[in-house]
Amino acid sequence: MTSGVPDRRRRVREALTAAAIDLFLAKGYEETTVDEIAAAAGVGRRTFFRYFPSKEDVIFPDHEARLLRVAEVFATAPHDEPPLSVACRAVHGVLEAYLDEGVIAVQRYRLTRDFPQLRSREIASAHSYHIAVTRYLVDRVGDEPDGALWAEVAGSAVVAAHNHVLRQYLKAGGKGDVLGKADRAFRYIRETLGVTAARSEEVDDVVVAVMRRGMPLASVMSRIEDALER
Amino acid sequence: MTSGVPDRRRRVREALTAAAIDLFLAKGYEETTVDEIAAAAGVGRRTFFRYFPSKEDVIFPDHEARLLRVAEVFATAPHDEPPLSVACRAVHGVLEAYLDEGVIAVQRYRLTRDFPQLRSREIASAHSYHIAVTRYLVDRVGDEPDGALWAEVAGSAVVAAHNHVLRQYLKAGGKGDVLGKADRAFRYIRETLGVTAARSEEVDDVVVAVMRRGMPLASVMSRIEDALER
Repeated sequence: MTSGVPDRRRRVREALTAAAIDLFLAKGYEETTVDEIAAAAGVGRRTFFRYFPSKEDVIFPDHEARLLRVAEVFATAPHDEPPLSVACRAVHGVLEAYLDEGVIAVQRYRLTRDFPQLRSREIASAHSYHIAVTRYLVDRVGDEPDGALWAEVAGSAVVAAHNHVLRQYLKAGGKGDVLGKADRAFRYIRETLGVTAARSEEVDDVVVAVMRRGMPLASVMSRIEDALER
Repeated sequence: MTSGVPDRRRRVREALTAAAIDLFLAKGYEETTVDEIAAAAGVGRRTFFRYFPSKEDVIFPDHEARLLRVAEVFATAPHDEPPLSVACRAVHGVLEAYLDEGVIAVQRYRLTRDFPQLRSREIASAHSYHIAVTRYLVDRVGDEPDGALWAEVAGSAVVAAHNHVLRQYLKAGGKGDVLGKADRAFRYIRETLGVTAARSEEVDDVVVAVMRRGMPLASVMSRIEDALER
């Protein structure tokens, strides 16, 4: 998945992240210095900054790569795939990246609970997925009436569904049927928000009738005839 | 709306915000010092810090009060009001607070576009509304199957609808039928997400039939009978 990044670079990066997580968990975020992280990973301070712009970035080593993969899903999606389906696929890829990390993701979650600065950084990361998804949806349907409203609502909903499923999994220490839950959550999103806001108001060619089971057939018929305006 | 805050305190606070906005717009955010803001408002640096913990907070003077009003809507909502209706009312109150600010809100929007630090602060503010709304919805329906998923998705959607309508209004320099658009957006949210995720799958007592207008009546009937399993 990190093809193009030479192996040595990846190993150093992973060693820095692992060392930082251990130190943050053991001593606290504020109390740990970049020098200590670098030393624990067997490199110098300057090497640290060649990999990460700041101390808080060290536990989000893969963020840019994930955003790029999201952008790639959008760039390569078939033109006739429904926008919300593409959005769900892209965000599902982010979820898979978290699962691939294994214990690192669980430890990061614990750190973002304990240290507000890491929490803010995580909120900013989640926001960048939200922005990417919403922009894609706006590109696809922004010209339609209320398309931009729908794009923003649907984009938020997809990311919220992902966040919910991921958080439940991380809270449980990385256990549970996360992929099954994700399928269910994304299906719910596609079913409820699969039609843009304006289209959901179009009643010209489709009639929706809601009936209680047990309603007398005569009432059902008269309701249907009313709806079809016959 | 700021009852309990003595008039003088409110006047000083407003003067600091107005001075900061003028200076940020004229000189840039980084280039403006707290001393300059305080001097322009006719007070000293120490007075500034009695009102705002940092330079970036000065353009969000009302944030805590707005969050308190949101919490108050939740605390005083009738028990039989649908959770999503309460959430929309609370977030509508935030929108009204922006409208009450007039030109200040428009200027703040421009500043958050231009200066990333103010943008991050605004994202954090928006996130705090999102958290408050989602928590309320979780409290109301979290015990239901998939209640927490629905709460997170619906909470995000309500805040996204608000953000969309507000941003369109601020982008247009504070013009447009923002309240009409908000009503329309919140109605869309209530109509699409007004039922929790698990309930939307309950097909035991309600049957939904979707038909094209122009479908022969015999086909309509057989589809209805199938759906009702008669």
